[in-house]
Amino acid sequence: MAVYTEVTDDDLTQFIAGYDLGQALSFKGIAEGVENTNYLVHTEAGPHILTLYEKRVAVEDLPFFLGLMEHLADAGLACPVPVRDRNGVMLRELAGRPAAIITFLDGLWVRRPSVENCAALGETLAKLHLAGQTFDMTRKNALSVSGWGPLHEAAKGGADTIAPGLNAEVVEELHALESSWPRNLPAGIIHADLFPDNVFFLNDQLSGVIDFYFACNDALAYDIAICLNAWCFEIDNSFNITKARALLRAYDGLRPFTHKEFEALPMLARGAALRFLLTRIYDWLNTSADALVRPKDPMEYVRKLRFHRNVKSARDYGLGDN
Amino acid sequence: MAVYTEVTDDDLTQFIAGYDLGQALSFKGIAEGVENTNYLVHTEAGPHILTLYEKRVAVEDLPFFLGLMEHLADAGLACPVPVRDRNGVMLRELAGRPAAIITFLDGLWVRRPSVENCAALGETLAKLHLAGQTFDMTRKNALSVSGWGPLHEAAKGGADTIAPGLNAEVVEELHALESSWPRNLPAGIIHADLFPDNVFFLNDQLSGVIDFYFACNDALAYDIAICLNAWCFEIDNSFNITKARALLRAYDGLRPFTHKEFEALPMLARGAALRFLLTRIYDWLNTSADALVRPKDPMEYVRKLRFHRNVKSARDYGLGDN
Repeated sequence: MAVYTEVTDDDLTQFIAGYDLGQALSFKGIAEGVENTNYLVHTEAGPHILTLYEKRVAVEDLPFFLGLMEHLADAGLACPVPVRDRNGVMLRELAGRPAAIITFLDGLWVRRPSVENCAALGETLAKLHLAGQTFDMTRKNALSVSGWGPLHEAAKGGADTIAPGLNAEVVEELHALESSWPRNLPAGIIHADLFPDNVFFLNDQLSGVIDFYFACNDALAYDIAICLNAWCFEIDNSFNITKARALLRAYDGLRPFTHKEFEALPMLARGAALRFLLTRIYDWLNTSADALVRPKDPMEYVRKLRFHRNVKSARDYGLGDN
Repeated sequence: MAVYTEVTDDDLTQFIAGYDLGQALSFKGIAEGVENTNYLVHTEAGPHILTLYEKRVAVEDLPFFLGLMEHLADAGLACPVPVRDRNGVMLRELAGRPAAIITFLDGLWVRRPSVENCAALGETLAKLHLAGQTFDMTRKNALSVSGWGPLHEAAKGGADTIAPGLNAEVVEELHALESSWPRNLPAGIIHADLFPDNVFFLNDQLSGVIDFYFACNDALAYDIAICLNAWCFEIDNSFNITKARALLRAYDGLRPFTHKEFEALPMLARGAALRFLLTRIYDWLNTSADALVRPKDPMEYVRKLRFHRNVKSARDYGLGDN
């Protein structure tokens, strides 16, 4: 939520001149993106996003992210497309940082997703997974089950300052998931961070999916589990099975769940809840009191985790009971 | 440089529906403006700025600021115009804050202004002052000579931590200026913060002036003195008389300097330097080490102040020696 790297007018003008976009008419730093610096640039060819990749993003992953966006857009998914410069290059350098120009997507993100929004999400997620099957680059998921232990190590000392007993609950869950994490599920490209703020709607139609900087290869159903957590709980932490059913059915209509995925869904949902709980605990403990970005409440994900722990089967998410 | 107030999609959609702008196609928080929250909103009628006024801006001043922008734009100055809603209202409320929609101006701000940029600035400043003569609202300049004493009181304790002897130098200057501050100069509306980042250029033409939230009534030549400080020093703190001459001559061509203004200019330039030195000292001492916005170096204005103290007459700024 900040501009970490300042770009001068001269540098921007010279950079934009490398593209077939006409000249830059204006540019504004956007208060979005915790990882990177983003500018909204109006060019004669329309609005674009200029992203400067900051240190938290591994440079060696950038060809994967940019290539994936181009691949998915080519396959018809509404997502930002990296613009190639006059030499055909997507990833360049600006102000000492790796930088890319990305197409701009219209739409607003929805604070309170409706049942219809969840159905549209399910359909788009299936399309994303199907389109990803023909993408030939791979990236390991650093935040899957093998990454949770180290993440917990980094945060465990302060967990109980957030809530008494939190650390013990996390440890117990971590052990349970490590010992019975579902393996050999249908795998492929997943978005891995498909929260409502990464999905745009316009006139109640899904107009685009953004922010592919956590995308990686993993079980496809794990991506669904992330969405169940991010889209199907109400503000009071109650689970809205109507929204979940809409999401899952829409997904299933395009890419039918396998039996193994059906069986695995509750465990994947627990894992997804733990993954975001762990990063939220870490961020909570490592954000200074006067930072502009207030860290998100870890306890929200404790409550979601407890819900999934009591789920008996994917039927409790509304799947397969029609 | 932050979004202090978050606006939801529903609130934005409802707010925009009050205007003849079609629907909102996208909105992004802009990492600009230390005082207020700004969103760049793409509507069907084009891009606009949505400003939410935060606590640091006095609500009672908002009709002055908005009315002034409308007045200046009507007079032909390239500046943002508050858009009136269907009921003719400019100032509304959104997310619990006073809020306004302002037209969007194309252009980039120039990090290293050229002589031609300075001439364009001088011309536009004169136009602004002339157009302001027919504006019938007034606002006292809280940051003129009578405000410097209190500002110094708030910051003097830490000044010497920035540079040894800084406080004594400020006190001496403050007394000198308080005792001989020029009075009864031609007065009117001044911008009062016309730094390069508030002036846009496109194809080397001045395309707009923004940020009228320091505008007030004061000596017109004081506004020029601010610009001399902000536009006519190089990065090494050397004074560029060619730029100053271009600025002053262009201004003088539209609104000729009176003899009193000519005489007062060196003292006004000292005052302008002290005014920004004082706020920079204050910000330097009151910005936490890990804040996202790094405070600007106060010492830059100490050097400018010393330059002006050695100026013998406005001729040293390039005025009147043609």
